[in-house]
Amino acid sequence: MSEKALENEQLFAGIGVSNGTAYGKVFVVAHTSAQIPEYNVSDSQIDGEIKRFEQALMKTRTDIVSLKEELAQKVGEKESSIFDAHLLVLEDVAIISETYSNLQDTKRNIEICYIEVVNRFLQAFEEIDDPFMRERIADIRDVSRRMINNLMGHEEKSSLNLGEPAILASKDFTPSDFAFVDKTKVLGIITEKGSLTSHTAILARSLRVPCIVGINIEETNLKSGDVILIDGYKGNLFVNPSGDTLKKYTEIANIRREIERIFDSSLPYPSETTDFHKVSLEFNIGSASDIKEGSMSYSDGIGLFRTEALFIDKGNFMDEDSQFEAYKAAVIKAEGKPVTIRTLDLGGDKTLAFKNEFGHEENPFMGYRAIRFCLDRVDIFTAQLKAILRAGVYGKVRILYPMISGINELVRANSVLEQAKLALKNEGIEYSSDIEIGTMIEVPSAAMIIDLIAKHCDFISIGTNDLIQYLLAVDRVNDHVAHLYNPANPAVIRMLDKIVSEGKKANLKVSVCGEIAADPIFAMLLIGMGVDSLSMASGALSEIKFMLRKASFEELRKLRNDALSQNCSRDILTILRRFRNAKMKEFIQI
Amino acid sequence: MSEKALENEQLFAGIGVSNGTAYGKVFVVAHTSAQIPEYNVSDSQIDGEIKRFEQALMKTRTDIVSLKEELAQKVGEKESSIFDAHLLVLEDVAIISETYSNLQDTKRNIEICYIEVVNRFLQAFEEIDDPFMRERIADIRDVSRRMINNLMGHEEKSSLNLGEPAILASKDFTPSDFAFVDKTKVLGIITEKGSLTSHTAILARSLRVPCIVGINIEETNLKSGDVILIDGYKGNLFVNPSGDTLKKYTEIANIRREIERIFDSSLPYPSETTDFHKVSLEFNIGSASDIKEGSMSYSDGIGLFRTEALFIDKGNFMDEDSQFEAYKAAVIKAEGKPVTIRTLDLGGDKTLAFKNEFGHEENPFMGYRAIRFCLDRVDIFTAQLKAILRAGVYGKVRILYPMISGINELVRANSVLEQAKLALKNEGIEYSSDIEIGTMIEVPSAAMIIDLIAKHCDFISIGTNDLIQYLLAVDRVNDHVAHLYNPANPAVIRMLDKIVSEGKKANLKVSVCGEIAADPIFAMLLIGMGVDSLSMASGALSEIKFMLRKASFEELRKLRNDALSQNCSRDILTILRRFRNAKMKEFIQI
Repeated sequence: MSEKALENEQLFAGIGVSNGTAYGKVFVVAHTSAQIPEYNVSDSQIDGEIKRFEQALMKTRTDIVSLKEELAQKVGEKESSIFDAHLLVLEDVAIISETYSNLQDTKRNIEICYIEVVNRFLQAFEEIDDPFMRERIADIRDVSRRMINNLMGHEEKSSLNLGEPAILASKDFTPSDFAFVDKTKVLGIITEKGSLTSHTAILARSLRVPCIVGINIEETNLKSGDVILIDGYKGNLFVNPSGDTLKKYTEIANIRREIERIFDSSLPYPSETTDFHKVSLEFNIGSASDIKEGSMSYSDGIGLFRTEALFIDKGNFMDEDSQFEAYKAAVIKAEGKPVTIRTLDLGGDKTLAFKNEFGHEENPFMGYRAIRFCLDRVDIFTAQLKAILRAGVYGKVRILYPMISGINELVRANSVLEQAKLALKNEGIEYSSDIEIGTMIEVPSAAMIIDLIAKHCDFISIGTNDLIQYLLAVDRVNDHVAHLYNPANPAVIRMLDKIVSEGKKANLKVSVCGEIAADPIFAMLLIGMGVDSLSMASGALSEIKFMLRKASFEELRKLRNDALSQNCSRDILTILRRFRNAKMKEFIQI
Repeated sequence: MSEKALENEQLFAGIGVSNGTAYGKVFVVAHTSAQIPEYNVSDSQIDGEIKRFEQALMKTRTDIVSLKEELAQKVGEKESSIFDAHLLVLEDVAIISETYSNLQDTKRNIEICYIEVVNRFLQAFEEIDDPFMRERIADIRDVSRRMINNLMGHEEKSSLNLGEPAILASKDFTPSDFAFVDKTKVLGIITEKGSLTSHTAILARSLRVPCIVGINIEETNLKSGDVILIDGYKGNLFVNPSGDTLKKYTEIANIRREIERIFDSSLPYPSETTDFHKVSLEFNIGSASDIKEGSMSYSDGIGLFRTEALFIDKGNFMDEDSQFEAYKAAVIKAEGKPVTIRTLDLGGDKTLAFKNEFGHEENPFMGYRAIRFCLDRVDIFTAQLKAILRAGVYGKVRILYPMISGINELVRANSVLEQAKLALKNEGIEYSSDIEIGTMIEVPSAAMIIDLIAKHCDFISIGTNDLIQYLLAVDRVNDHVAHLYNPANPAVIRMLDKIVSEGKKANLKVSVCGEIAADPIFAMLLIGMGVDSLSMASGALSEIKFMLRKASFEELRKLRNDALSQNCSRDILTILRRFRNAKMKEFIQI
């Protein structure tokens, strides 16, 4: 026992993979493998065992699919796609057919036949030393645990009923564990296995809770209810933190809270620089309920209303009237400020409930999705456009087309829109004829023809997440290449600047709605490039408004020039960070 | 019977999906479903039936995999990926588990249990009216036929032994049929099912044989050995063509042959315009054997040596010495002309024999491939670089890195190259220290930083196939979106021009090695943009050299200016075609 232990505080060092600190009770997620019974079955029972197995397969599939959908809604579609790997494991033909062989050969209950085969696979995989294989092993464990529980009729959900907010601890935390808990009660996560790009780390970051990996949970002797403090910045876990430690972290937390208060103090004021250059700071939402009460007083509008969540939620294609109600609700809650509704962006990694519509694709990101799907299924597209046109009566609505790659698509979308208007007119239904049209710039080819696009719409909105993926030919959910996804890559910075400057030259309003719009250091750069509006998760707005109100447009222009003259991403990041830190130091003294 | 029939000639109209005409005997590929026996099995035989089924599954998997590899080599990796769909069908868990249930329930032989399940699936799918689903149905039919043959121990290969060159006819032609025949003996293809984007059409075009779809084979009463003439341009099938028809088509064929002779007449002369602007016209190869005897007398070099085929051929990672021999053979056959060796571009759709190295990827085109893989597996990369350096002693060798997306990768690749040189020096093995380094420009981000790339290499080579796919976010093997793959898209033309002009400004030699370099109308545009060399399949060189020698650089520059000033792909194509047709008319009078 170390001296620290004698003082009753124990410090364990791991690797911080999601920032923040958390203090509270720990909830240890014990993956005690269920006791699997073993018994013989007669020839006549074999049929029944196979049936039982097939039922468990189906039940498990349904479980995983609904988990995926839940996660898609609550965390994000991208994050939820990690469950696709689970489905592949579940339906692995080798595992299934070997389980059947085992059953036929040894005539024992199907649980034991299955788990023996799974363990054989795990053993083979564990011999391969590769981070990618390690993730696969975690997937197989997770799926087989779920299969066994379903075979034995166990309910797993209850096992993660947190009751009160807690920090989760587990040797081998799985996405499934995460899906079952009430996300609002998770204060933080510690786990033994995992890395910066592991599924758990990705999920923690998207929930904005601290996360530490590389902690040997057994060694810590943690029991549910123990009080701990975790520092996701440094990767430290304090068990029974001492008064001194708590004081130190309380101070840090107070400072953070004070900084947030300072940021919030700028909320009531206009979104403009010290030299009165106005920028519209807006929200991204997935449904009307995402607009928090009172929040429209400091937001300049809804820059991105993603409509997929509505559809995924329902599990089918909503009719015009239900969509109309959903859009109208958001328009009313926006209190007269503009609401930018993006038309259906299904496909890519967002197909789950609609598998039949999309079929299997080798490269879904480069496949049948968004506007490509809508121009093919004009019935679905028309219903959506009509619903949006009707919602326009209740406020200021804009339409935004996703995944435009060339002029033809834009022209065709506009012509479907005109037909939708005509249909409404014929039906005698009220609609707004004064709706601005926007084009998402997220396919690199669209970025090359801003002047041509400008002839067919009123504004553009840069979807940086997809644009960066296509520019770099990197799927950022793919652990093998995620490290290449880098918004500070000089090629990305140049492309963004080119889009903004050509958009302005063509008199288009230019908006950015990807993740970097919510990142203070990139947001300042984008404003320096000349974007008219940034759209982001509501929590990110106060810091960006604060920064904006402390900077002059001249400074930001210079920041942009400096960034563009750099030759590598490291130098670009240094310049952007330095600018932010200087501003923080200048205006925040605590 | 029509009058034409009385004359003994019958004309059937279909849809031409691959250009060209063919005249010869037809070979009717009859997919008479094998007679499937039906018999009862006892409880004790069930085990044996399952085992038999599993063995057939494995055998079928091996068959499909080796077909895919064969096709990858003989036709192209991209085309071969259509067999991935077959593997998915084969291992469909629903079909397999329902087959087992059927066996348990009805206790009959496994062939009949399997085919009943398959037929039920087919019936369900046939009710869906969608071109995409129709392709899936063809896949299921193909795979189940193969399974049944394997279950019954039938050898399928022999059934397509053509003997002499023939035109293949089949109601439902499948990629498997194609894989078994000697490709050099296929004169053309007619089939009932299929479309411009069907697998058969893609294969026919890549083999450059005419293909007609939409012909009801039963109605034609065709028997193997009948003499027919097919016109893939117009989609016409003539059974027992009359003397007049033959004369007409012979005349057309003669004219085509005469034109080819005229093209070939320019081969001995320099590759330059009328005003002496030189352009290097080079070959793409996959191994030394692709360099035909005598062909180096009119080629300016090897612009692209794809090294994947060598590896795929062997089915494993070749050692340094074997690679050295393979590269040396090509360098010697190149007779002192430059040989550009592209380092390993495995991954994406080229992983088959190396599945374990790549694992499953949701979007392989945006995943772990080419230089990303090589910089991870420095052992494999170093062996290749050392082999290339050693081959450099026997001629003029260049190294080309694929899939570069940023400067870091290029710098790291160069540092591995320096280490490879050092290793050879220490081992006392002779190598060339005077090798030019090139970067493939195929990831859009690389196209944005040509000035930065220029600091670390001597030349660039534009890989238009991948570049266009990433620019447009389109996987051109995906039937749903293949129509969006369009090299004449203004965004593509602008991007190509930007790359060439910035490459020239940075004093780089600029080459193009994608498919459009072999297309006469695009080749002229690329030369007008200022590219220094075009690399293509050997058969395409004579027409391009002819065109080049008839045009002035001034004209081509103007062609480029005209194309860049157009706003849509249709107008760009019109301008390019008009230029070519005018040149043809001016210089070819027959």
